[in-house]
Amino acid sequence: MKVTILGCYAATPRTLTNPTSQVLEIKNHLFLIDCGEGTQVQLRKQKVRFSKINHIFISHLHGDHFFGLPGLVATFRLLGRVNPLHIYGPKGIKEAVILLLKLGDSWTNYLLHFHELTSKDSVVVFEDKKVRISTIPLDHRVYTNGFLFKEKEGQRKLEVQAVAAHGIDTCYFQNIKDGKDAPNAGGEMIPNAQLSSDPKPIKSYAFCSDTAYFPEIIPQIKGVTALYHESTFLESESDLATKTKHSTAKQAAKIANDAGVKSLILGHYSTRYEGLKSFKEEAELHFKPVFLADDGWEFEF
Amino acid sequence: MKVTILGCYAATPRTLTNPTSQVLEIKNHLFLIDCGEGTQVQLRKQKVRFSKINHIFISHLHGDHFFGLPGLVATFRLLGRVNPLHIYGPKGIKEAVILLLKLGDSWTNYLLHFHELTSKDSVVVFEDKKVRISTIPLDHRVYTNGFLFKEKEGQRKLEVQAVAAHGIDTCYFQNIKDGKDAPNAGGEMIPNAQLSSDPKPIKSYAFCSDTAYFPEIIPQIKGVTALYHESTFLESESDLATKTKHSTAKQAAKIANDAGVKSLILGHYSTRYEGLKSFKEEAELHFKPVFLADDGWEFEF
Repeated sequence: MKVTILGCYAATPRTLTNPTSQVLEIKNHLFLIDCGEGTQVQLRKQKVRFSKINHIFISHLHGDHFFGLPGLVATFRLLGRVNPLHIYGPKGIKEAVILLLKLGDSWTNYLLHFHELTSKDSVVVFEDKKVRISTIPLDHRVYTNGFLFKEKEGQRKLEVQAVAAHGIDTCYFQNIKDGKDAPNAGGEMIPNAQLSSDPKPIKSYAFCSDTAYFPEIIPQIKGVTALYHESTFLESESDLATKTKHSTAKQAAKIANDAGVKSLILGHYSTRYEGLKSFKEEAELHFKPVFLADDGWEFEF
Repeated sequence: MKVTILGCYAATPRTLTNPTSQVLEIKNHLFLIDCGEGTQVQLRKQKVRFSKINHIFISHLHGDHFFGLPGLVATFRLLGRVNPLHIYGPKGIKEAVILLLKLGDSWTNYLLHFHELTSKDSVVVFEDKKVRISTIPLDHRVYTNGFLFKEKEGQRKLEVQAVAAHGIDTCYFQNIKDGKDAPNAGGEMIPNAQLSSDPKPIKSYAFCSDTAYFPEIIPQIKGVTALYHESTFLESESDLATKTKHSTAKQAAKIANDAGVKSLILGHYSTRYEGLKSFKEEAELHFKPVFLADDGWEFEF
């Protein structure tokens, strides 16, 4: 599981900083999360293969999270894309993308599926055998969802030596992986725990941007492997955070602590600050470990 | 008069090349022409003062010429813009920008005027005491206009020594600048030609992108100081040029030659070509001087 930050700064694209976009690699998927202006150039810089992106998740319809989407959809066509593309985002996203294409008398030569979101409760938006993705309703100035990417429980791991020692037939292997007991050569049932071990721990990633301090999300993100939580401001600007429905680094850390997550990644920094060091220092008073996202930064977990 | 190229490559923004956008400085105006994705970052790189841009001209609604506009409009607001902003472009541009702002529950805190274009004939879109701007209808896959920026004829230049020698009263100076004769101290009328000289030559700039080879524009751009004409392809790909309604370098040069312009600037290159040298070589067989636009390049004339 790896997240690559394409952009993690608030408000406007600048010479050296980019608005929100990131790529999550999980179970052979490449999920694009948010798509601020310039995302397609950032994808090129990070050498992400465009053709591997089949699902795009948009948190909300502020420009710094989605103004790069129409251009990316158009570029996919120019690159000769064949695979269908799925776009998940707030209601209205379809009208916007379609209008911009129509005005240029442009269409896609691949299937474009919009999954428009309106629910204020968490909903599952994508699911296959190995991954489940659900929305995390957030508290921002407009309708906004974070996204929870969660691996599904894997099969139990066959203990090859134990299975051989008991002389168990191969036809029982799938049963054992599914958690069932199995008979040995003499017909005696051997408990599953002696034949298999726990599957690899489930990993999960929660993307929460943009949002005010919103403890309601805690039950949903409890214990996630990595939490990306916005920290537009420092506590010294907490009045601004309240007014604009953003969070401070301290608030992000409190959420991480109260949800017992394994690691916290901060991002969506206001460009008013000179460096990022203060964000880490402020957050670490309340939670550890804290990582600072930055454009081009990769995080494996 | 100075043009600064922010981007001059066709199709998609890439790591080192940008889609169409340029800034024209003329008579204390800063006119932005086209606004592909990433234009606001290019403006920052070229250190153009955002607050000096009050007029934006959009040739057509293909993404590589206008997908940077909604973001720029939003950024103007974040920068605390006060002055009204005028946007000139094909019908539909207003709906697109307004929809994208509305979806983000965003508005401008400055006046935003749209001047939507539908005419297939040239129309004057802006005029003040010193400059007139008119559309140049082009031939592309969608409704497209180039733009002709033309200084107005200035006042005649007062010949200070001649005026003094004839003892002409200061109250006649404006008349002389307007081309009228004036009486000397003895009441004798002195011909204007003895009291003034011709105004500075009129400069003009024609922006023609995107377009197929379209000789109909020649009467309108006759003798312009600088012609920016797209050359997406070389002659070796003239079939592609015809099919996509773009021009080759040779065709651009033929237009320049037949219109007797003073200089030709090529741009809107397809990214299929390794370098730009061949564009210049091909065009120079038919017209000189030829200049190659490139991102960040400035041209004073």
